[in-house]
Formats: sequence, C-alpha cells, structure tokens
Amino acid sequence: MKKILLLLCSCSIFWLSTTSIRAEDTVSDATSECLDCHASIHPGIVHDWQKSRHAKVSPKTAMKVEGLASKISSKDVPDDLKESVIGCAECHMLRPDAHADTFDHNGYDIHVVVSPRDCSTCHSQEAAQYNENIMAHAYDNLAENALFRKLQRTIIGSVSRNQNCIIFEPADDATQAETCYYCHGTRLKVTGREIRESDIAGELEFPVIDGWPNQGVGRVNLDGSLGACSACHTRHAFSIEMARKPYTCKECHVGPDVPAFKVYSASKHGNIFSTMQKDWNFSAVPWTIGKDFSAPTCAACHMSLLTNTDNDLISERTHRLNDRLPWRLFGLVYAHPHPVSPDTTVIRNKNGLPLPTAFDGTFSTEHLIDEKERLARQQRMQAACFTCHDSAWVKGHWQRFENTIRKTNGDIRATTAIMQEFWQAGYADMVNNPFDEAIEKKWTDAWQFYANAIRFASAMGGGGDYGVYADGHYQFSQTILEMNDQLKLCQKIEAFTKK
Amino acid sequence: MKKILLLLCSCSIFWLSTTSIRAEDTVSDATSECLDCHASIHPGIVHDWQKSRHAKVSPKTAMKVEGLASKISSKDVPDDLKESVIGCAECHMLRPDAHADTFDHNGYDIHVVVSPRDCSTCHSQEAAQYNENIMAHAYDNLAENALFRKLQRTIIGSVSRNQNCIIFEPADDATQAETCYYCHGTRLKVTGREIRESDIAGELEFPVIDGWPNQGVGRVNLDGSLGACSACHTRHAFSIEMARKPYTCKECHVGPDVPAFKVYSASKHGNIFSTMQKDWNFSAVPWTIGKDFSAPTCAACHMSLLTNTDNDLISERTHRLNDRLPWRLFGLVYAHPHPVSPDTTVIRNKNGLPLPTAFDGTFSTEHLIDEKERLARQQRMQAACFTCHDSAWVKGHWQRFENTIRKTNGDIRATTAIMQEFWQAGYADMVNNPFDEAIEKKWTDAWQFYANAIRFASAMGGGGDYGVYADGHYQFSQTILEMNDQLKLCQKIEAFTKK
Amino acid sequence: MKKILLLLCSCSIFWLSTTSIRAEDTVSDATSECLDCHASIHPGIVHDWQKSRHAKVSPKTAMKVEGLASKISSKDVPDDLKESVIGCAECHMLRPDAHADTFDHNGYDIHVVVSPRDCSTCHSQEAAQYNENIMAHAYDNLAENALFRKLQRTIIGSVSRNQNCIIFEPADDATQAETCYYCHGTRLKVTGREIRESDIAGELEFPVIDGWPNQGVGRVNLDGSLGACSACHTRHAFSIEMARKPYTCKECHVGPDVPAFKVYSASKHGNIFSTMQKDWNFSAVPWTIGKDFSAPTCAACHMSLLTNTDNDLISERTHRLNDRLPWRLFGLVYAHPHPVSPDTTVIRNKNGLPLPTAFDGTFSTEHLIDEKERLARQQRMQAACFTCHDSAWVKGHWQRFENTIRKTNGDIRATTAIMQEFWQAGYADMVNNPFDEAIEKKWTDAWQFYANAIRFASAMGGGGDYGVYADGHYQFSQTILEMNDQLKLCQKIEAFTKK
Repeated sequence: MKKILLLLCSCSIFWLSTTSIRAEDTVSDATSECLDCHASIHPGIVHDWQKSRHAKVSPKTAMKVEGLASKISSKDVPDDLKESVIGCAECHMLRPDAHADTFDHNGYDIHVVVSPRDCSTCHSQEAAQYNENIMAHAYDNLAENALFRKLQRTIIGSVSRNQNCIIFEPADDATQAETCYYCHGTRLKVTGREIRESDIAGELEFPVIDGWPNQGVGRVNLDGSLGACSACHTRHAFSIEMARKPYTCKECHVGPDVPAFKVYSASKHGNIFSTMQKDWNFSAVPWTIGKDFSAPTCAACHMSLLTNTDNDLISERTHRLNDRLPWRLFGLVYAHPHPVSPDTTVIRNKNGLPLPTAFDGTFSTEHLIDEKERLARQQRMQAACFTCHDSAWVKGHWQRFENTIRKTNGDIRATTAIMQEFWQAGYADMVNNPFDEAIEKKWTDAWQFYANAIRFASAMGGGGDYGVYADGHYQFSQTILEMNDQLKLCQKIEAFTKK
Repeated sequence: MKKILLLLCSCSIFWLSTTSIRAEDTVSDATSECLDCHASIHPGIVHDWQKSRHAKVSPKTAMKVEGLASKISSKDVPDDLKESVIGCAECHMLRPDAHADTFDHNGYDIHVVVSPRDCSTCHSQEAAQYNENIMAHAYDNLAENALFRKLQRTIIGSVSRNQNCIIFEPADDATQAETCYYCHGTRLKVTGREIRESDIAGELEFPVIDGWPNQGVGRVNLDGSLGACSACHTRHAFSIEMARKPYTCKECHVGPDVPAFKVYSASKHGNIFSTMQKDWNFSAVPWTIGKDFSAPTCAACHMSLLTNTDNDLISERTHRLNDRLPWRLFGLVYAHPHPVSPDTTVIRNKNGLPLPTAFDGTFSTEHLIDEKERLARQQRMQAACFTCHDSAWVKGHWQRFENTIRKTNGDIRATTAIMQEFWQAGYADMVNNPFDEAIEKKWTDAWQFYANAIRFASAMGGGGDYGVYADGHYQFSQTILEMNDQLKLCQKIEAFTKK
Repeated sequence: MKKILLLLCSCSIFWLSTTSIRAEDTVSDATSECLDCHASIHPGIVHDWQKSRHAKVSPKTAMKVEGLASKISSKDVPDDLKESVIGCAECHMLRPDAHADTFDHNGYDIHVVVSPRDCSTCHSQEAAQYNENIMAHAYDNLAENALFRKLQRTIIGSVSRNQNCIIFEPADDATQAETCYYCHGTRLKVTGREIRESDIAGELEFPVIDGWPNQGVGRVNLDGSLGACSACHTRHAFSIEMARKPYTCKECHVGPDVPAFKVYSASKHGNIFSTMQKDWNFSAVPWTIGKDFSAPTCAACHMSLLTNTDNDLISERTHRLNDRLPWRLFGLVYAHPHPVSPDTTVIRNKNGLPLPTAFDGTFSTEHLIDEKERLARQQRMQAACFTCHDSAWVKGHWQRFENTIRKTNGDIRATTAIMQEFWQAGYADMVNNPFDEAIEKKWTDAWQFYANAIRFASAMGGGGDYGVYADGHYQFSQTILEMNDQLKLCQKIEAFTKK
C-alpha cells in the first residue's frame, strides 16, 4: 500500500511539475486577438509557438527561477510584460517607435521584423553578448570590405564576355540576398507601403521591406540592431533544443569553405551524437554533461552553459562566440589569431589591404588578439574537454591542432608564392582584382577550401578522412601541383611567342 | 493473484487496442498459405508487411472511412478482394493474365513484379495520376531520346583508346541497369524459365526476368504499365511515413545533377525537420500542418494532402508531381517551363534537337506550359507556404527564385557561347557528339551541376551556402573562366602551328 | 483503486525486469575508489559507463547466458574478475606488466591505453578474430609499404618549391597522426614520465605517450597488440548499438576514396534505416531480422550475428571482416580478390612492387584468395540478403556488381595506359615517385576516387546516382578525357620545341 501511495504521489508530482508553473500564466488580450485570426491563417507557426516555452511561461514566473537554471537574464522586465506569456503581441508590438516597419494592423502598432533589441527586453545579457559576436557584424564585415566585395563579385556577379575576356557585373540585389547575405544577413529597408487583400479582413496596408525575407546572423534590422535570433532559435518555437543541435549550424557551416558540419558528422563526437541523441535531453538548463548528453554538439563547445553532475559550472553560457575562439581557422588568406573587434572592417594588413594577414602570411598583429587572450580563450574552450578526457589527451589534441595551423599556413605560403609569380610575370593581373581569373580561383581553392577543410577536420574531429581526401590534403597538394604546371606552361608559351 | 489478473488485463487492453479495428479483418487463405513458407524464408519483408496497414485492414473496412482521411480512392474494389487484408496473394495473384511473369507456384498463379496497375485496384486515383507524372515516363524519356543516349554513352560507356582518341563504347546492360536506369527504371522482359532448388519445396520453376531487380520510378513493367510504387513506398511496408520523409527522395535526388536532398538538409526547413521530426506524426491522413508536422519535407510541398488545424484543405494529394511544378529547374541546357506532356520524347527545339531549349536559350514553347498554367501550378505550390509565412515573405522568396532562373540561364548562355566558339573553330566537334570531349564535359558541368545547384538552393532553401560554394556560383564562375582560358590556349596553339 | 494497482503492477514489472539480472552484481572496491574522484572529474565518460552493460552485469552473470545470446566468448574468465561488474579497475588494471604505460596511481598499477588483448579476457573470440582482420594490420600495411609511403608523402607532406619543382617533405608526426593514422591507428610509444598538478590529489606522475590520443583500427598498442575496440565501441559505453549504426563506420568510410557511408545513406537500405531506425532494437543479441530491424546497416552485412524469427542462425558474428569479403573494391590500382593474409606488406605484384595488382591490371594471384574462397565468402555475405530477397534478386544484384568490377578495372586499364605514355615519353617521371606530379594525381583520381565510388555504389546500393554523377562514371569519363587532352598538349609542345 505504501508503494501505491508513493507511486500516486510521484505521479502527482510529475503532473504538478508540468502544469503548476503555468497555472497563472495566460495569454494577453492583445495576443489573444492576434490568435483569433492567425491560428487559422498560420497554423504552422502558431503551433510551433504553442508548444514553446514562450507560450507557457510568463516573465514573472520565469524570473522566479534563480541561478544557473534561469532563462531570463534581464532584471528589469517592464511590469506590463511580466504577467502574460510571450505571445505575438509581446514581441511584434514592442518598441513601436523604434521600428521603421511599424504599421497599423487592426488598431495595433505592429512591426514585422522582431529584432535582437526586442528580445533583449528579457534576454539582455544574450543580446548584449551577441552584439559583440563577430557574427552580428557579418553584413558590414562583408559589404564594407572593398576586397571582399571584389571576391564576391567574381563569384555571384552576372557573367558576360568582351573580347575574349570574362566580365563579372555586380550581382543584382536578389542574387546577393540569396547567396552571401542569406547567411551574413541582409540590410533591411522599408521602401513603401502596399495594400493587400486578405480573406478575413479585406484590404490591409503593410510595409514593403527591401531585403526581406532574411534570417541571416548579421541582418541589419529596421531598428538599427544587428542579427536575427531566429537564425538559430527558429521562429516561432525559439527553441533551445534546435540551437543546440548541429543541424542549425549546418545551415551556414557545411559548404567547402566552412565544412564544420561535415567534419563534425564524421567525427567521433558526431558519431556519438548521431547514435545517442535520441536518449539525450536538449532542453535542460543548465546542460549537464553525462546526465543530459555525452558528446558535444557545436553549441556545447562554442556557446552553451555547461555543468557537471555535481552542478559545478564547467562553461559559462555565451552568445559572443569569440569568447572561446583563440584562432580563426578560416583563411584570409591564412588562419590567424581571432580579431580583437567584431567589426573587422577596421583591419588592415601591412600592405594596406583590409585583410588580417598579408599575402606573405604576416599577421595584422595589432588587430588580432595576443597570446594571453588566446590562452584565456583556449582554456574556456577546453573546460568541457576535461570532463571526458584527461589532460594528456586534450594537450595532444591541441598540439596537433596548432601544428596544423602552422603547417597549412606554410603550405599556403608556398601556394601564394606561385600565384605571385603569375602576377609578377604578367600572366595574371592582381591590381584590378586578385580573384577574377581562372588561376586566381585555383589559388582561392587552396586557401578557402582545402586549407580550411584540413583545419576544421583537425579542430573538430582530431583529423580523419575528411581532412585528407574530402577537400583536404589530397586536393591541396593536387592544386599546388596544377598551379605550378600552369606556370610552367605560361613560361613555355611566352618563350615560343618570343621566338 | 491480483497482479496476474492485472497483467492479463493490461495485456488484453493492449491486444484490443491494436486489433479492434480489424476484428473482422483476416488474412486470406491464399496469403496464409504463402506465409506458411515465406514467414520463415523471408522474415524481413514478412515482418515489414505485418507491421503495415496492409496487413491489418481490409478494403471493406478501409472504404468505410470517408472524406480526406480515406486511403482508398477506388470505388469499385472487386468483392472477392474486399474481405481480407492485403497480403501476399492479394497483390502477387492479381490479374495473372496481364503479367508476362506469371508462373505456377504450388498451384497458384503468381507474378513476381507487382505493378502500379495492380495497385490501382484499390488506389485508382493515385495510379492514374502517377501515370501522367513525368517520372512514370522516365525510361522512354531517356532511352528514346537520341541526344540523351549520346550523353549517356559518354558517361557510362566502356572506354577504349584509338589513335590518341578516347572512344566510348555503348554501355553493357548491367551497367545501364545500375546507373541511369537504377532511378529511371529498367524495361523488364521475361526471357525464359529456370528451375531452382528450394530447401522447403524442392525443385521449382521461376521466370527469368531481364532488367530485374529494379525499383526505378519509370520501370516498364511486365503488364506494360509504367513505374514502381515501391520506389517510394518501399516493399513490403508500403508506408506513407517513408514516402513522406526526405530520405526516400534522396535515393535519386542527391547527386550534383539534382542536389535536392543536400540543399534541403542544409535549409531552414531541413534543419527543423532534422531537429523536430522525432515528435512528428508522419502517418496521419490528412497531414495537418502544425499538428502533425511543422516544416515541409519534399512530399509536403510536392505531393501530400495537407490540411490546416481547422481541417480546411490546403493542398490536394497528387501523385502527378507536375501539378505543383511551374518550372523545370533541371537545365537541358537551360531551366525552362515544365513540359506539357509527361512524354518528353515529343519535344523538339527550334534546331530540331530533342531538347526543351535551344543552345541559345530559346524555349521550345509549344511543348512547354504557358504562363497561365505556370501561375496555376505556382499557386498550388505556394498554398502550403502561406500556412507559416505571410504573402510578403512568399512573394519575396518567389521573386528571388525566378530571378535566379533568369540569372543562371543568362550565365549559361554566356558559357554556351564559348562552347560554340570551340565548335565553330574546330577545336571541338559538335556534330558527332556534343558531350564526348573534355571541354564539352566542362560545359556540361556548368549547366548540369552548377546552374542546377544554384537553382535548387534557391527554390528549396531560399539560397544559402550550398548555392554559392558547394557546386554553385563559385564553381560556375571558375568553370567559365577555365573554358575561356582553354579557348585562348587553343587559339594560341593554332597560331603557333600556322607560323 | 484498481487503476492504482494496475499502475503499480506495471511499474513493478518494469522495475523487476531492469534490475533482476544485477541483483548480485556490484562494483569492485578498486573501481569504487576510482569513481570517488573520476565521477566528478570525468562525468561524461563515467555516465556513459554507468548506462552501459559493463556497469550492470558481472562476467559471472553474463556467462550464465548460453547459446546465441551469449555476450562473453571466453570460457576461462579469471575468478577474481568474475564477481564484479566491469568498471574502471577491471580494464585499466589488467595485465599491468604487459603495458609499457603502467604507472602508479594512488597505490594502483594503472595503464592508460586499454587494448584488445585486455578485452580478450572476456571477449577472446572477438579479439582473436579481430587480430586476423585486415583492419588490425592497418598501421604496418601503410607504414611498412614503401610505395604507399610515397603516396602518403605526396598528400600530407609539407610543401616547398625548388627551381620550378614542388617538393614534398616527409610529413611531421603530428600531421601523420591526424591524417592517415587517425583511421589506420598510430604506433604508441612511452617516451617518458611527467608530473601533472591535479585539483583533487596534488602532484601526480603520468606516462607520456607518443601517438596519443588515437583510436584507429590498427593502433599498435603498448602491449604490442593491434587495434582499438573503442574505434567502433566508443569508450566508455562500448555499446553494441553504436557499432551497429552506420555513423560509426562513417568515421573512416565517407570520403571520396571510400564513400561507403555516402553510398549507403542514398541507397534503399539506407533510406529504410534512416526512416525506420527509431523503431528498431540495436542492442538485441542475436540480432533478429524482421523483429529487431528490417534493413541492413554496415554491421549487419559485414559483422553481426543474425538470426531469423525462427531463431535459425543466418550469419555468424565475425570481427574478421574478411570472412564475408570476396572482393577488395578499393583499387590498388585495380579492384582485386581479397588478400590472403591480413598483413598486406608481403604482397608483391609481377613487377616487384608492393601492390596486389600490376599497372596493367594483372592480379598478384598468389597473395590473393582463390575462386573457391571467394565463393565461400560470397555465400556468407549473401546469407542475409536471402531473408528479404529471392535468389533471382540476389543473383541479379551480384552479377551487376561483379560486372562493375570488371568494367571499372577495364576503364582503369585504359586510363593507366595513358599514364604510362606520359611516363614513357618523359612528360612525367615514374621512377622517383609515381604520385607526385599533377598528371599523376589526375590518374590517382580515376582509380582512387571514381572507380571506387562506382564500385561502392554498385556493391552497397545496387548503383544509383552516387555511382554516376557524384564522383562516379561522369567524373571518371571526364578525367580520362582530360588526361588524353593533356597528353596531346604535351606532344604538341614537344613538337614546337623541336621545331
């Protein structure tokens, strides 16, 4: 009989724990009015929201949770937002004067594009950190870098041909929005208003937004803020589970330029994730190593708040990914210490080019973090490693990884030296654009694809087949041989011509 | 004692819950006899079947379901099939006179290859639609197109070399069956009979079938019908769940020519699917957006019967995928409006070639759907979009997508112009075969891989990294530069030769 | 009240079923002492272990299981190991004198690297089989093959340039460890001792191990044994589930040289796995086709103990993968019958090179298995096929597969003939290194990537798009055309030079 009571009791507790927190948490009148129409019109996103934490917990309830389990970092959530759960109105009606896309919608001031600054009402720390994250600046870091614009143009520009020469016209806006700026984020701009006919409410006026839709990490929003929380916390579930799974990062980090997901999914960690994720808890806050999961995802290493099973803090949550990144693996043209400022448009190399390294490999040291900061970031990154691996393991991994940075940078130096011979001999032209000829593309392959893939494989997988045969060492060595052969062919042809 | 009773009770409840719907639905005597041997011999497929709806529900029971939840579209299922569940005998003994592979098997007339025409006994609407689906005609559309056969030969043909020239012999049957026709489907043919020794029943005679095994979408069956339902509804589970998950489409749509799965899996929709599918219901009919799933799979956009949470019809089920396809993204050589007829062998371009576009990009307009039909199909496709996105979002996406069709077609026009210079100068030969030289392969790369990848990324992902760096814009721009360099090299060498 | 009783009852049953087997199985004192510290320090691996079978079942209990369900193949487990579950101490303290890395750790003799010879204490049969598996010999098979070392050097060696020539220096140890030997396994060596400061226990001495960390399949361990069980049974869960899922094999078998996972995941079997795995039992021993799973993973075809639903043995478990492998698809330079000995360093081709085939395609017959052995292995491999497919299906599949071996070998013969013309004409140099020039890399592409991809697609997928357009026939045909064009260019340039 005792057992029965106990069981009954534990069941009740379970029932209470899943329902008690929202006994008093209700939808606001404004949101309720939104739902009157939108539940039918947009069942997909409304259901995502209904299943979300936002739909169930008011800030007031959420703020009762203290310590590492807290999900709201703001201490000063406005009183009028505290009592209701976070519904349509709570986000789309925040700070109406700040948003250029605010419009009257059935008597309410609504804006279409909810921004990190809106989210900061409850999640101030995350928004502040994200603003200092290099990803938040991804729009300007590309669009305001004259050299990168040249590179961009030779990739996505429309092609024509003039007297045996291939000409790359600047890419049109639509192409830009769905290529580079799909991930980097577009610059949004309200260009007017338009009337649309709706089934339910007849004619309605809406803002027309240039650069929309977009969910890029560095989107320039209509209140001037940077980024889109929905890039990772997909609207309207805004789930922590999704952000913690690697499929989210894959959206932008899978191609040959940044093959993070590919490398991860073929790594030991990726294998454990793929095999065992069905048994893991991706929603627990904090995220407890061993109990909730037993191999890192992208988020675990780069962002998440981690504890061990004694509830000791292992890694602080950060939305400023730089915090745990000593090196920037991505070659420009070489891998290099991470930039000091998330705004990389300020960087100049010793030749005055807006690059973190010179073509000879010299780092633009004053714009890049120093050894002390690298060490601090390395320690933050490694904190999680030590919960499964001893220090010899971690040290061994890291030594190989930093060796790979040096080795690939050396190999790219040899590759770039060949490219410079092309330029010096006049077989290619660097001045106008160093990226718009076939041989320059081949040089770009070497550093943007192959050296990167080798480094990503080393960092995230401890190496493996992906760093060798899948856009790695093999392709790099092939490329430098082909560049060298082409140089010799150019020299031979020049010799014939002079005969 | 109580415990035993209780256990018995809970078992009974379980048994009832899984059997009640089929209280009267039983296996036929003929199927029962099949199972006597085959349950042991072929446990894999027998268990798939046992877990399937086919094993549990008779047509009579199924036909009681009306409206959108109905899973049987035929109104005239023969009486002798109505009472039993759909087992081995019900399919493999249907219409024995129609199948060239019918053979006597322990006193029964059995045929090996069950065809869509067999399935149409219960699923008449789906079979009829599928027959008008371009995929049903995939065999002839390839095998009866003289130009495509030339292309095919230069890819899978056996290679030899004669006086410095590479010769492509026609590919042998086995190679054809496991390459192009693995997806397109083989033409099945009974070539004889053979005796096989079986453990259980001694010597048995079976038909020998050329082109078998195969489950390609356009398989030419032994009753003359086209296609294989098992291509997507894998035998013998024939599950709707499997057909709705993108792994099924991946079987044929993942390579660089048609990278649909790749692009999808790196898209926002693909991310949501990968992260959340564990909580979704893939078997519900109709498939309710928001309730059953919250991001589209391939099937949701292209085929499935969709409703919103008010049970309003959003999209009608179709097995004629053309219904929702205004554009054919796949470049031949250019993307173009979808063909009018699923039989594309009738198409001729203005130069008389069996292609939907001319080499200069002109559409073979009379064979392609017009703007009105494109709009109708666009509306059918977009119906589902509107259940999560407002019209500005959908319109914005679509404008970028159609812009990408125009842009890539323009870029391919520039590429093809270079190819034509090769042909005109005699550096390559178009007349014999426009696909069998190295430079022609490079040109093929541009339209068959890179332009396609860009369009698929645009259509299914709204763009992203895959359309740029993974067989997209970057590789396209590299290819046109390399083609142009090779043209200049040919010109130089010709000039030397003439000296 | 009845409901409560019912609930209680079912809970009790659940409780009993999960605990009864280990009523008497406890953690040893030594392991308990390990856990005192390591549960906090290494929660990730400790929790993996706690959820594992090792943490729950003692050898004594496990040995009570007889027949196919037995998980311990040793009959002579030492008495002092029989009573406790398998914890830290049971493995890391085994055979201390045999391990060069044994060190005193708080009064215990601990070794870092647990080896297959340790595991053989309970799993003798698996360890013995694995030792005869070609994978166990992967270190020497690469490191002691002079020709493979040349190939390796031209891929991962550091690059420099001397008088227009690219020089590949031998790769440094760290690069070797994270590239080729990441999968093949490193040779471990204790090079000294070092003092590390620990939070809990102050200064502690540990061995310094060269080549660590590593979990490659052919790791040369500190007790002289070969391999790492943790390569597939990831430490410290050592789960059969993980080894049976294809993500494990993917760690080393996904790149373009061995695209097994890629091909599988786009195959019909891979589709069924991806779609249905959520409902399968990956831990059952034996693994029953139909009941536990309904489509093969890598393990099912190559390794697992399989039964049908009548408990008949279908396939014996083997950790010697050669048992079911008649052909070695991997081209060196040609696909060939599997080597007789797992130690492939003994192989010489007719020209004295350490290769299983000559450059003209002749097999090194005496070192390769004969037709009889091939047939025996083919039958072992096909045993599982017959549980879902009839003999016509299996025969048809196999005929196409062996046809593909012949066809691709023929195509590679034509490719190699071109390469030989380069060598004979002096346009490339074979003597010093047949892999270190651009044209030689292109030749390598043909056999190491494209011919392999075609064969893997044929074997594991019955063909499909991956064998055609994704590093398959298309890329092969392109490569041979390009090689031929380059040969003609070399000839032309030579002719000009002679003018």
